[in-house]
Order: sequence, then C-alpha cells, then structure tokens
Amino acid sequence: MTASTPKTTLWQMARRAERMNPSVIREILKVTERPGIISLAGGLPSPDSFPIDAMREATTGVLRDNPREALQYASSEGFAPLREWVAAHMGAQGVSIDASQVLITTGSQQGLDLVGKVLIDAGSTLAVESPTYLGALQAFAPYEPEVITVPCDDDGPLPESLGVAKGARFLYMIPNFQNPSGRCMSEGRRTALIDAARAIGLPIVEDNPYGDLWYDAPPPPPLAARWREGTVYLGSFSKVLAPGLRLGYLIAPPAMMPKLLQAKQAADLHTPGFNQRVVYEVIRDGFLSEHVPTIRARYKSQRDAMRAALETHLPPGCHWNVPVGGMFFWVELPEGVDATALLPTAVDLGMAYVPGAAFFASEPKANTLRLSFVTAAPDVIERGVALLAKALTGDR
Amino acid sequence: MTASTPKTTLWQMARRAERMNPSVIREILKVTERPGIISLAGGLPSPDSFPIDAMREATTGVLRDNPREALQYASSEGFAPLREWVAAHMGAQGVSIDASQVLITTGSQQGLDLVGKVLIDAGSTLAVESPTYLGALQAFAPYEPEVITVPCDDDGPLPESLGVAKGARFLYMIPNFQNPSGRCMSEGRRTALIDAARAIGLPIVEDNPYGDLWYDAPPPPPLAARWREGTVYLGSFSKVLAPGLRLGYLIAPPAMMPKLLQAKQAADLHTPGFNQRVVYEVIRDGFLSEHVPTIRARYKSQRDAMRAALETHLPPGCHWNVPVGGMFFWVELPEGVDATALLPTAVDLGMAYVPGAAFFASEPKANTLRLSFVTAAPDVIERGVALLAKALTGDR
Repeated sequence: MTASTPKTTLWQMARRAERMNPSVIREILKVTERPGIISLAGGLPSPDSFPIDAMREATTGVLRDNPREALQYASSEGFAPLREWVAAHMGAQGVSIDASQVLITTGSQQGLDLVGKVLIDAGSTLAVESPTYLGALQAFAPYEPEVITVPCDDDGPLPESLGVAKGARFLYMIPNFQNPSGRCMSEGRRTALIDAARAIGLPIVEDNPYGDLWYDAPPPPPLAARWREGTVYLGSFSKVLAPGLRLGYLIAPPAMMPKLLQAKQAADLHTPGFNQRVVYEVIRDGFLSEHVPTIRARYKSQRDAMRAALETHLPPGCHWNVPVGGMFFWVELPEGVDATALLPTAVDLGMAYVPGAAFFASEPKANTLRLSFVTAAPDVIERGVALLAKALTGDR
Repeated sequence: MTASTPKTTLWQMARRAERMNPSVIREILKVTERPGIISLAGGLPSPDSFPIDAMREATTGVLRDNPREALQYASSEGFAPLREWVAAHMGAQGVSIDASQVLITTGSQQGLDLVGKVLIDAGSTLAVESPTYLGALQAFAPYEPEVITVPCDDDGPLPESLGVAKGARFLYMIPNFQNPSGRCMSEGRRTALIDAARAIGLPIVEDNPYGDLWYDAPPPPPLAARWREGTVYLGSFSKVLAPGLRLGYLIAPPAMMPKLLQAKQAADLHTPGFNQRVVYEVIRDGFLSEHVPTIRARYKSQRDAMRAALETHLPPGCHWNVPVGGMFFWVELPEGVDATALLPTAVDLGMAYVPGAAFFASEPKANTLRLSFVTAAPDVIERGVALLAKALTGDR
C-alpha cells in the first residue's frame, strides 16, 4: 500500500484549529530580518539591555553549586525561592499574596494559554480592550470564545460601558503601557473600573509585562491590589532581564491554583529549572533595582527620539500618543489611509511597522499602526520614521 | 463592597477543567521527598548521568559568542542548527525528513499538548495502549476525547484488534521500552501494526523518549520510518542529557506543520533559545555518541540489580518483565492484591513505587505497579525491593 490516502482525510484536524492563525507580527518579523531594513515593528527588547555578565556569573554559580538539582525534573509550581521572590515583589506593589499563589510559567505567554485552558469554554464570552494584545487573542482563540470588545478611550476601558461584558468569563487587560496603544490607566480609572467590575461580577486577567518600564513616574498600583480575589495577574522577566529565557509568572486566587497547576503539568511538566535558578541567582540580591533604571534611561531617550522624529517628519492629519512607559507609539494615520496596504511601500523604502488592524478583536481601524522604540538606537529611529513619512507622502 | 461573591460563581471554570486531575506520580513524588525514603517511583534520570562539565563549557561558549541572540526572542520553530541536527539524527534511524518538519518543543510533554490541541475535538475518539503513559492521558484530557484502549500483549498493541480504533483521531504509542510496561515492540509487530493502521487509515502519534536507552541491542527502527505521512513523532533530550532543560522535538508531515506551529506560538511563543543553543553546543560534535553509552552502562547495571533483587525477594505469585531498555520494571502482584492500598505500608517501611492503576485509560489492573531503576544505585535498589517484599508479605 502506498501513501494514497490524502493527508486531509488521514489526519482530521480539531475544530479549534480553524480558529488558529499565523501571527501577523511573526510574519512581519520574517520580512524585516532582511539586512538593511529598519524595523520598528517587533517588540524586541534592546540586546544592549541584556545583563550578560550577570547571566554568566549566575550560570557558572548554578552549575558549580547545584547542577544536579538544576538539571533534574522539578516541581510544576516552580522553584520555591523564585516563587518567594515573586510574592515579595508583588507585596511591594500592594498585592499581598502567599508564595503558594505563584505559578512560574514558560514566559507570560504560557500564562495566557493556561488561563484560557482553565476558564474558556467554546462559545463562552471573553472581553478585551480595543485595541488589544494580538498574542493574547492568539492564546485564547483555540479555546473558541466569543470575543467582545469593551469600549475604550485613551485611559483604557470605560467603566460605564462595562455592562457589555457582563457574563463574560473574564476581561483581559494590560493596564500599564498597553500593547499596542501605549496607554497607561490612571489611578481614578482603575478605581472606577474595579468598582464596576465588582458590581457585575466580572473577573479580570491583568497582564503586566511592561509595568517596570516607566519613564516619568511609576504607574498606579495594579488592579490585583484592588480586587485580589477577582484578578489573575501575569508577570514576566522578558522585559527586565531577557526574553530568550522564557520566564514569567502567574498569580491567582487560591481556589484557582489546583486547576491552573494541573493545566501547567499537562502543558510542559514544569518551566526549565535551570533557567529558574539562574534568574533567581541574578535577581536575589537586588540586581533589578540597579539594572532596571538603566533600561528605563535607555528606552526613555529612544522614546524621546521617536517623539521628536514623529513631530518632525509625519505629515498633517497623523495623530499619536506620547507613551509614559513601555515600548510602543500608536499612530493614527489620516482617515482613508490603510496601514496594511501601505506596508509594502514602507518595506521597499527600508522600514517596517505593524499595521494596527490585527490588534482589534472586531471593527479594526485600518488607519492605525504600531511603532516600537525599544529595539533601535535613536539615530536609527529617526531614519526609520523619516522613511515612514516618505511612504505616507509618496515623496520618494 | 467586600468580597461577598463566592469565588465559585465569580470564576466560572471551563468544562474541560473537570477532566483535569492532579498527577498521581507528582503527588507520590512529594511523599517520597521525605528524607530516608527509597523511591523507585519517579522516572527521574540519575543525576550522575548529567553532563555537567559539557554544560558548563557550552553555557560559557554561548554567553561569550552569541549572548544577544541567545537571550532575545527567537523563532517559534526552533533554533535552525538544532532542527538540522534533529533531521540528521532521524535520518540515521531511517526517518528521512527535512528540517522544516522539525518543531522544537519545551520538553516532549509539550509535544503531547500541541498534538492534542490540534487533533482532538471534544467527544472525538483517541486510542491508547494498555497500559499507557499517564502524562499523555493528562495532556490529552483537557481536549475531552473519548479514550479507547487497544488490546495489547507483551509485544504491544495487537494488529488484529486494531479495528476497535477505526475512526480514532490517532493511536498514541511508545514502541520503545514503554512507560510503564517496559516492553519493546518487535520488528514483526511493528510491520504488522503499521499495515493494519494503514488499512483502516488510523494515524499514529509515536512517542520515543527512551529509544536510546537500550541495554542489549538497539530497538527496531521507529514506526515513523515505516509510514512517514501517517506518523507524528515525539523526541526528547531529557533522558540522554538532562530533563531540567525541558527540551524536546516533534516531527510531523508537512501539511500539519502550520497548525502545530500556530499552536506552539500560542502556547509559549518559543522554547527558550538559550537552552536550545546550549544543547546544540553540547551535542554538535558527536558528544552523545560517547555520552549515551555511559548512561546505558549505568542503567544496565541498575536494571540487572533490580532483576536480581526481584528474583531474590519477591514472594511467589509475582510476575515481571525484564526490560531490554528504558527505565521501568512492570510488576504484577498476585490476584487480589491492590497496589494502591499497599502503598502506605510500603512508604511506612521506607520505599515507594507507582501503583499501576493510574496507567490504564479503562479497566485498571489493581494488582500492578511500576518500579524505576534509573534513579537509585544498585545497593539502594536492592534494599528498596527488599522493603517492597516486606510490605507484600507483611513480614515486618
């Protein structure tokens, strides 16, 4: 017998596979790996910010002092001292938790997957911001939710509109320096939103990868500090240390931990113990309190360079925020300009961005785009924005 | 407003959460962490087999030569040279594939999760061996399959009984030194099984974490070598290098790769690039061809110690296989003895095993248990088996 059976009937895909899509961002990243392209597309931290010396010292130490434990199977919950560190770190932000509420994840992307696995049924409702993080939509999509969008302004979701999300399994949010909009929710909006969420019994999944990257003043305390039992919180070491380690964490109310832990076991048994111990060695004695300010200073100057370049180069009719933290500018082009259609022109000219449409769960705004200021140096940012302006004005 | 809403109504769990369970093995491992307990329960590789010097050299090299790439976000498919290595490694086993068919996973447990996510619908049929790997049942359970068991003998699934699995999304198998039974499928059985699977259009997920751990002669070529387009193959570095790195791989027919890749992106973006580069540095120049034989020699002597101890100590009416590879003996106690009920007695005496019941998708055999011979040294194995015999005979 030969391979006469067509693959499509031999391997029957699950229905949820239809909901999966290639990541627009990862597809664009492939294009932008072309030499000479100035990419303002990806949210790649600057490699100049990676603590290579500290990493070297820590890996040497772990392989000298605890190699057998670091290389062996480990607990699904995570390395106990690292969980204690996370609990203390959260406590310092007003989120009083026990280390038993901390689950170490393989990047915070895995936290999104576990939350989706445990909380989303096919056909159940999931509420998101407008726009929202594309990677979260991708993580949740295989669980087949009906996604609804909560109306938002420049301060985040509107508390008075939260009723549209009543009955949703949860509202997914990035309150600090949101991806892609760059916005940071004010203290007042946080209070009002949590009051409204409590009133309708709407739990919140709070994703906070960027909170430490503030350039003027720290953001207000997390939503989790205001409604502990109504919030699952996701954190990450990707932006303050290095993303290639794939290390994040999830904090949940005690009653939810058993199912999240079982989902974690099923997903990858545990996050690499070697990576957990190395990161713990790097951060245990306060390294981040000296290291993160250097990242802030670097990114603040790059943000300022992008702001100046946008002001200098972009034609009238374009609007943008000035983010007070994080990694992104969110640009609205003049009505009628389609950022997706414009991208090939920009790439031909030598720069790339991410069209905004992919960040909307519904009613995409075609005239939006996202620019990252963390990967490129100030002079490169300036040149990249100038090329974007050229693409926009047709002035070649 | 206070926290008056009960958590159970605030957070509504997905239906699939009911199908998730704590890992029996991981629960037992917690018990056996008690000092002084001889654990023959877990399948933990001997830490004496971890290549610590090679790891130290490789981490130093990666952090010296490519730190910025190793610590940055990376492609979801995996590190290209490692994928090429896997393709060559598979080719040497008769599985001719292109590196584009290799997906690097966060341990082969993640491979199981991705396969389940892409292939299993709620209510669809999944076929497994009897007994079968508990961790696979856990990975697949959240996708809510109806699990059916294919009748097996000491050589694996019976080709003439495969009709019971007709229409299943796939048959999940460990042909080499199966967990938990230790059995290895013969050449003839592999041929007959693949013929039968082709005839009814039943695809196969072949899990091969133990294939390199043979003690007498290499196992026959993989099922994937016999029916490339009908097989997804899962491999792992956990048993030949170290499990704490969480590094495995998945090989699939080209038509399946896009959805598996999208599931991978959604699950954790990518497997830690640092770990992938370190492992590639360790293995690139043929390290495994010298290292794996040392593991085989170690485990073979431990297997022999366990065989001798079983023969010496176990009372009449007990039966076991003699595994020609892998990590496990599978013991059948006399009819009527319940291994789950006996476990507390054994732990009180100072040893632990895994009751066999958890490894059956249906009709558990209460009088079975699994013993691992890879973690403990020969003299410890001898003492552990003697304690098991004491528990069985009540001779305290």
